[in-house]
Amino acid sequence: MIRNAVRLHKRRASAILPPMSEPLAPLPDGSITSPRGFTAAAAHAGLKPEGALDVALLVSTTSCATAGVFTRNAIRAAPVVYDADLLSERPGRIRAVAMNARIANACTGPAGLEAARAMAHAAEQAAGLPPRTALVLSTGVIGVPLPVDPVVAGLRAAAAQLSPAGGVDAARAIMTTDTRAKHCAVRFDTGHGAVTVGGIAKGAGMIHPDLATLLAVLTTDAVAEPATLAPLLHRVADRTFNAISIDGDTSTNDTVLLLANGASGVDPARDGAVWKQFEEAVQQVARTLALAVVEDGEGATKLLEVQVVGAASEKAAREVGRAIARSTLVKTAIYGADPNWGRVLAAAGAAGVPLAVERLTLQAAEGAGWLTLATAGATANPDAARARAIFQEKTIRLRLDLGVGRAEAVVWTCDLSPDYVRINADYTS
Amino acid sequence: MIRNAVRLHKRRASAILPPMSEPLAPLPDGSITSPRGFTAAAAHAGLKPEGALDVALLVSTTSCATAGVFTRNAIRAAPVVYDADLLSERPGRIRAVAMNARIANACTGPAGLEAARAMAHAAEQAAGLPPRTALVLSTGVIGVPLPVDPVVAGLRAAAAQLSPAGGVDAARAIMTTDTRAKHCAVRFDTGHGAVTVGGIAKGAGMIHPDLATLLAVLTTDAVAEPATLAPLLHRVADRTFNAISIDGDTSTNDTVLLLANGASGVDPARDGAVWKQFEEAVQQVARTLALAVVEDGEGATKLLEVQVVGAASEKAAREVGRAIARSTLVKTAIYGADPNWGRVLAAAGAAGVPLAVERLTLQAAEGAGWLTLATAGATANPDAARARAIFQEKTIRLRLDLGVGRAEAVVWTCDLSPDYVRINADYTS
Repeated sequence: MIRNAVRLHKRRASAILPPMSEPLAPLPDGSITSPRGFTAAAAHAGLKPEGALDVALLVSTTSCATAGVFTRNAIRAAPVVYDADLLSERPGRIRAVAMNARIANACTGPAGLEAARAMAHAAEQAAGLPPRTALVLSTGVIGVPLPVDPVVAGLRAAAAQLSPAGGVDAARAIMTTDTRAKHCAVRFDTGHGAVTVGGIAKGAGMIHPDLATLLAVLTTDAVAEPATLAPLLHRVADRTFNAISIDGDTSTNDTVLLLANGASGVDPARDGAVWKQFEEAVQQVARTLALAVVEDGEGATKLLEVQVVGAASEKAAREVGRAIARSTLVKTAIYGADPNWGRVLAAAGAAGVPLAVERLTLQAAEGAGWLTLATAGATANPDAARARAIFQEKTIRLRLDLGVGRAEAVVWTCDLSPDYVRINADYTS
Repeated sequence: MIRNAVRLHKRRASAILPPMSEPLAPLPDGSITSPRGFTAAAAHAGLKPEGALDVALLVSTTSCATAGVFTRNAIRAAPVVYDADLLSERPGRIRAVAMNARIANACTGPAGLEAARAMAHAAEQAAGLPPRTALVLSTGVIGVPLPVDPVVAGLRAAAAQLSPAGGVDAARAIMTTDTRAKHCAVRFDTGHGAVTVGGIAKGAGMIHPDLATLLAVLTTDAVAEPATLAPLLHRVADRTFNAISIDGDTSTNDTVLLLANGASGVDPARDGAVWKQFEEAVQQVARTLALAVVEDGEGATKLLEVQVVGAASEKAAREVGRAIARSTLVKTAIYGADPNWGRVLAAAGAAGVPLAVERLTLQAAEGAGWLTLATAGATANPDAARARAIFQEKTIRLRLDLGVGRAEAVVWTCDLSPDYVRINADYTS
């Protein structure tokens, strides 16, 4: 009986994180240009002060199968409207992504959509591409018109310097209040040849919410069809970027793109095992970038991982995890190193998911084991000094077992510090 | 054409706040004992330090028709479970409400329910009431067992001092981190006699969320039936207490009670005009208490009123208002006196309500008029100095017109300051 419980426990502990065989070693300076056939460059268009990079251009030597995941906000920024339209029309014909920081081109009316179109056209012309092959990404302040002429000039300057080493500069160009550029890549061998997956991202959500944007661009030299790439990207985004979208305030500009140009000659869809390797590689890149976003949160001093297990569905598990991760009470307790587990249960209860309080178990990771904080929905009388010590760590992992099923999800968030408030209290003016 | 627009504008401006003929003058020291036939007292049971009042008892000389609105959190504290059960069984037989602060009796398992029952029994015995006539309210830390013996002793001490002047002490006893006791009452004449409505409350939600509780007790000497009282209380709560429940984290203990003992001999249900007066009086008391809760928020320096007009339904209007009011971005901007209107639209867009961005108009109250910040979903190029001046006021009123219907709602919130984080970062330990 006890033995069974332990076995179950172990199974869950190992199953909770994505089912990766073994994480791949990240490539040095990996980015969107690590996969074959991609070049990039960045330039200064005058949007940021002091000559800092603020526009970037990514170009593929051949057409890419492309998938996109966009904000669910009812107010969608012009670049989101433009990209969603282009992707629905030509998901197999994408050649480039043009990006800018500082101005989100959101809440800018019909002129904003015209500006997004002009930005795409400029990228296509400057890189010698056919019309309707460039996507656009913008991040920055909402409600301010995009200055088209400087952005066009910046994209032309970038197009003149496209290079297979330019991906890291592109990551720098899309930074806003990010303190670190976010980029990575992994490579795996398939038996039919090597496949590389790379990506860049910038912060968003609860973390850089003022800038209203999580932007991520993933590239791969795998051969793929848009029809299979899109569901893969949705699955990956749900487990990575959507698992850190923690404030309920889905932004106006959130965009994740995945471009597959086929330059490796390897088509993962032909072999189930290779497809699994491929999806895991994409997920590893996405998760690395997503965690980098959380860790680089404004004012953040700690990382909180919330594992929800024993749920009736993965959706229910994720909803409960998100409710905990967006609770200002939980986040201030994490900041204060306060093992106030009642806040975690109260936040879980407010998720809108039916819960059986008498089946709830809450644990905190303590070294390689777990300290049980609450069981059957009531206190487990944990040792106060041990609980306190756990909450003083820089990374805190909580596991809430809902006790009603076998589905699981993981979400990540950072703490809420007085610095966060200070940083966000005065932005536009 | 312009004239029509102005007229429509005016109609909306006057209709936005609840349709009160004229606010009633608040009674001096008004509270739950202002209506005839109610007595109350408070005592020190040892839960708070230094002899501070921490338990309270409200008793009616006759049975009350009683309605309750309880938390929608899937995890309901023991007092909520107890009260909901008792009210479903005997909504016309309530005589008393026993209250305590400091310990919420939430996440306390079967022992917690037993403690709630013991608390109710103690109140009934001490006040000489029949069994199953007392409701219970608890507020404080989650997950800590309620110390029954001291609470019982405190309720006995309170029962020995019941007085028609005891309502304000009861308001003091339920305070936790509240800095001010919250109580009020109004009286109106019906032609058939005067009716009085009173109430007390303590803070909750985004404001005192650690204490996990908004508690409010409303009393009246009107004659009423439970069947008509319940829908009235739901309507009133939606427009008042639920309009300040702004963090998505519905607590485990939230409770609003309305007790009508009939001591005035006036039955408002017999006359539509009197019923309207009655509902307005209840709403005025509830709104006064709800605004007092927001204004007394931990670390709060400002009050934000969000009017959402032109919505397809009142529910849609309220959802949009709540999404704006719970946005940490909006709340930090209010703290920083930053007229960053893009955040308001982005938060509205994340409410889960379909919006037509090109129909959105956002205005800020400027004296008796309005300054338009955004129109057709894009900037209205407002004068920057005027916008800045508005956001530097202590009370800020925003009006968002969705442009798709005639329904409206108002929500209130406070700003998010570094002090809020500091106060909440270390509570249990």
